[in-house]
Order: sequence, then structure tokens, then C-alpha cells
Amino acid sequence: MQPRPTPVILREVGLRDGLQSISRVLPTAQKLEWLRDAHAAGQREIEVGSFVPARLLPQLADTADVVAYAKTLPGLVVSVLVPNLKGAQRALECGADSMLVPLSASPAHSLANLRKSPDDVVQEIAQICAARDASGSRCEIEVGVSTAFGCTIQGRVAHGDVVRLVTAVLDAGVDRVGLADTVGYADPAMVTELFGRTFAVAGRRLACAHFHDTRGLGIANVMAAWQAGIARFDACLAGIGGCPHAPGASGNVATEDLAYLFASMGAPTGVDIGRLLALRGKVAGWLDGEALHGTLWRAGLPKTMRADTAAASA
Amino acid sequence: MQPRPTPVILREVGLRDGLQSISRVLPTAQKLEWLRDAHAAGQREIEVGSFVPARLLPQLADTADVVAYAKTLPGLVVSVLVPNLKGAQRALECGADSMLVPLSASPAHSLANLRKSPDDVVQEIAQICAARDASGSRCEIEVGVSTAFGCTIQGRVAHGDVVRLVTAVLDAGVDRVGLADTVGYADPAMVTELFGRTFAVAGRRLACAHFHDTRGLGIANVMAAWQAGIARFDACLAGIGGCPHAPGASGNVATEDLAYLFASMGAPTGVDIGRLLALRGKVAGWLDGEALHGTLWRAGLPKTMRADTAAASA
Repeated sequence: MQPRPTPVILREVGLRDGLQSISRVLPTAQKLEWLRDAHAAGQREIEVGSFVPARLLPQLADTADVVAYAKTLPGLVVSVLVPNLKGAQRALECGADSMLVPLSASPAHSLANLRKSPDDVVQEIAQICAARDASGSRCEIEVGVSTAFGCTIQGRVAHGDVVRLVTAVLDAGVDRVGLADTVGYADPAMVTELFGRTFAVAGRRLACAHFHDTRGLGIANVMAAWQAGIARFDACLAGIGGCPHAPGASGNVATEDLAYLFASMGAPTGVDIGRLLALRGKVAGWLDGEALHGTLWRAGLPKTMRADTAAASA
Repeated sequence: MQPRPTPVILREVGLRDGLQSISRVLPTAQKLEWLRDAHAAGQREIEVGSFVPARLLPQLADTADVVAYAKTLPGLVVSVLVPNLKGAQRALECGADSMLVPLSASPAHSLANLRKSPDDVVQEIAQICAARDASGSRCEIEVGVSTAFGCTIQGRVAHGDVVRLVTAVLDAGVDRVGLADTVGYADPAMVTELFGRTFAVAGRRLACAHFHDTRGLGIANVMAAWQAGIARFDACLAGIGGCPHAPGASGNVATEDLAYLFASMGAPTGVDIGRLLALRGKVAGWLDGEALHGTLWRAGLPKTMRADTAAASA
């Protein structure tokens, strides 16, 4: 539980996972302002959109424009989600630094979501890796194993199925994998167990954890994954993004809460929490009427961590 | 992180810590209904009120009546908070099973709250122990060290101060101690550190952790304390009870979220979560308009834990 020498990376997914979960379409200008402020607050890896057909997700139809702006921000790792080979080709064309390909461990979820079995998705991931290699691009390919901790359709997901798929996509040539609790079924004991088993086959290529706070355990699960050796976490500003199968349920863990967790423990994330809370206030204004989440914003930083207090007592 | 043989005890403090934090006075009949339902849901230790002057806390003026009813519920450990010797004498008179005496580790908080220094409170705790022994009562005396992780007035609280006070009250004759993060400043690393240091002087007499979810870390802190060896946690149904110094801030960790955390990990608490959620709905109706907290109630239990699903798939 001691602070690690490895800095913690909070990978912002609010502009993709967050915004795709609400029906309102945020104007491109506001997305760019969000990006600019997030970068100014110290965030260095942001999933800025998704290359899916605009008729399916009009909220993310401007992804190419958002990528183009994001690439102008110094030191920012610009990531996009791609559901298939066609989306991957668009990601390569626009020069994204990283692409995230989701792969459901639950066959029922995979069929409902993509009309493909997990093994069919593994095949397509192999094609994506081949296309990236043929293009000469250095875009990193990461697979996010969704429903890794359970599925609202299928119920339980066997850990062995997750490990098998991780092995398959690493064999197919992906650079990194992450495990996602898409529907909020994980608990810290499950996290310890499944991350441990997956590290055994993936080593350091297991490089991301994605948790939702649907049932209140999001931050406890982050802690369990951090203790298991993960130092990179997906998070959404204001915890935007619910679950379509659980109306009113909380979405992703809130970026500002994770930034506070690690700052309080002395583990650097590079994020300026004051600036992040200011951005949260701005985004909350843009999304007035949408359900937002997270906890830190209500009470603010403790007196022991506030810059003004530190200055006053110095 | 494996389930322990020791059952986890969720000590309900909603009827005291929760209700004293809101201005509305819940009628005695509703308190008794709450107690009856909580007992029926499997809760076996409940802080039912506080022996403080009724002019200070009219919400808890009926504590003696509530204790009398609680004592009729089989197997229930009936606990009350007492701020001083006079309150302790009332607790002994009414036959409470356990009394909780708060002791602020922060001198600033202690003076603001009780107009006494921590050392003066230790002296009074010695008098309370003597009074209990003289009475022949078997009422257990537990000291809750508040502001153990920091204070909104003083800021940092030295771990050494907490350990010194714990040693002093154990020497004074108390049966058990607990550590409380009264204002929501704790993080999991602090919890590991301070519980570890306190175990070294108190051993198994360190027997309770009390966390608020003011900044989102409540359940992660519970996990850290559990991993440190604590198996008894204060919690409030619906997370009732904010902090007067942080308007709108979340209060205690929610009983239903903790019951879910431990049930999901296979660590028995004896609580029927479905019944607890039904009681939460009832209490939410009584407290209509008050800020309630917790997360599980929105989404409900996962499909993998629902009795109806288990029956359907059997």
C-alpha cells in the first residue's frame, strides 16, 4: 500500500464512454474546450471519441475533428475506440496515438452488442493488427475485455474465458490489454483474483482497469487493481455514463475522485485537482439536467490538501 | 483478500449518527418500526440513540424509550452514545448492552465540541469505567476516537496522538476502541498505517472502524481496514448524516453498500440485502426531502446475486 515509483495514469474516457451514454449531443466547440482544459489540468491520455457509424452514435460523429484538435496538445496521448476493422482504418488515417478495441468476454453480450461471437472479434482484431503493421503506423492497439466480471444478460463470466481471450488477442499481436467491469458486478476480491490470473499470462501488457461505480464499489475496485500492480485506470469526469440495463445507475468511476484518492496517498497522477474540479463545474453546466456522479466535488479537498491552507500555514 | 472465518458485523448507527445530523425529528413509532425491520433483516448491533440533553439534540430525546423497545428484540446488542458521565449513568440505568464514548484526537475539535481537552475526556472515561464497575453492570464501554484521520478545524492529526489516547483509555479500563474518520479525510494508505499502529498497542481490543464517504473513499477505506484485520464497521442506512462543516457532503458509509460489498466477496454479515433495501425505501419516504446517499439502491443486486435469478436458473 506504499506509494509506487510508477506514476498513476488516469485515462480520461468522459468524451467517449461518458458522452455516448447520454442522448444530448455536445457541440464540437465544447468538446475542444473540455480537451484544452483537461490537458491544462495535467491529463495526458484521453479517449476523445469513437469511430462508429454516425447513425448509431451521433454524439461522437465529430470524432475525426476532435482527434485533429487533440493532436495539437503537447504530450497528449490521443486515443479512440474502434469497434471493427473499418473503424480501425479511420483511426489509422487520422493519426490517433492509440486505439481501444472492445472485446466482450460474455458471448451473449458480444452477440447483442456487435452481432459477433468473441472468437469472431478476436479474428477481426488480428486483421486490425495486420492493417496497422501494413500501414507502417505506430498507433498502439489495446484490447479492452468488457463484461470481464459478469454480464447483465449472461450473468456469471468464467475467469478462464477472460484469460483465454487475453491470450488469444496477445497472440494476435495487440500491444496491451485491459479488463473492464462494464456493468458494475466486480468486487475487490474478484479484482484481485482476475487481475492476478491475467497478469500470469499477460505480464506488463496487462495495463488498464476500467471500473463502473454502479453499486458503490468502483474506488475499492481501483484500489484492489492498484495493489495487484495496475497503474493506469479509465475514468470519466463527473462519473458520466450509466448503464443502459440499469436506469439511474452510476457510470464510470469519477476522474476527480480517483485523482483525489491517489493524491491523498502520495501517488502522483500529474493532475491538478483544483483545475479538474473547475472543469467539472463547466461540463456540469453544459450537461445541465443529466445525471452526474462522483463525490469529491461536493465537499472539495480536505483542509490538509488545499493550496491556500498550505500557504496560510507555511 | 480471502473471506475470513470471522463474520463481519455492520453496526447500524443511522438512528443516532444519521438522525442527529438532520433537523427533522423522526417520531418514536417510526424509530421502533425501523428497529424492528432492521432486526428482521438480520442486523444484530444497533446504536439506537444518545444520552445528551434534549435541548441540544431533540431528535434523540426519546432514547430511553427506544432502548426499552430495542431490548425486546432477541439477540440484539443495544448500544447508545454517551458524551459524559451523566449520559453514562443514564445508559447504565436503562440497561443498554454497550455504550460508545467519543474522544476527539484533535484538541481543537474536542474543545469546540465538548469544551474539554482530550486528556480531560480521558479522565471522564476513567470515571465512567469506575461507575460501570461500581454498578455491577455488564455494559461494555467502547471509545470511538474521532477525527483520528484529520480535523476540519486543526487540519492534520498526528498518528502518535491517536495511539497515545488509545493507550490511555485502555489503561483507564474501557473494553474496546474504534477509530473514526469523522470528517472524511482518510485514504486507504492512512487506514492501513493507523490501524496497523493501533493494533500494535490495542490488539483485538481495536474492534471498530467508522468511515464517512465525504470524498468518495468510504468503501475503499472499509476494505483497507478489513484487510488490516477489522471485522466490525459502523454504517448508516442510506448513508444518512452529513458533516456540518461541509454542506451537502455525504455522510456515513451506507449500510446497504457495505452489506453488498461483503456479500459479494463471500464474507457473511448475516444481513438480508433485499430486506435492507426495502427498509431503506421506507426510511427514504419518512425522510422525504433530506439528502440520502449510497449507491446500491439505484441499480439493485447484480443478476448473479438475485434470489429470483438463482431460483429461475436452478
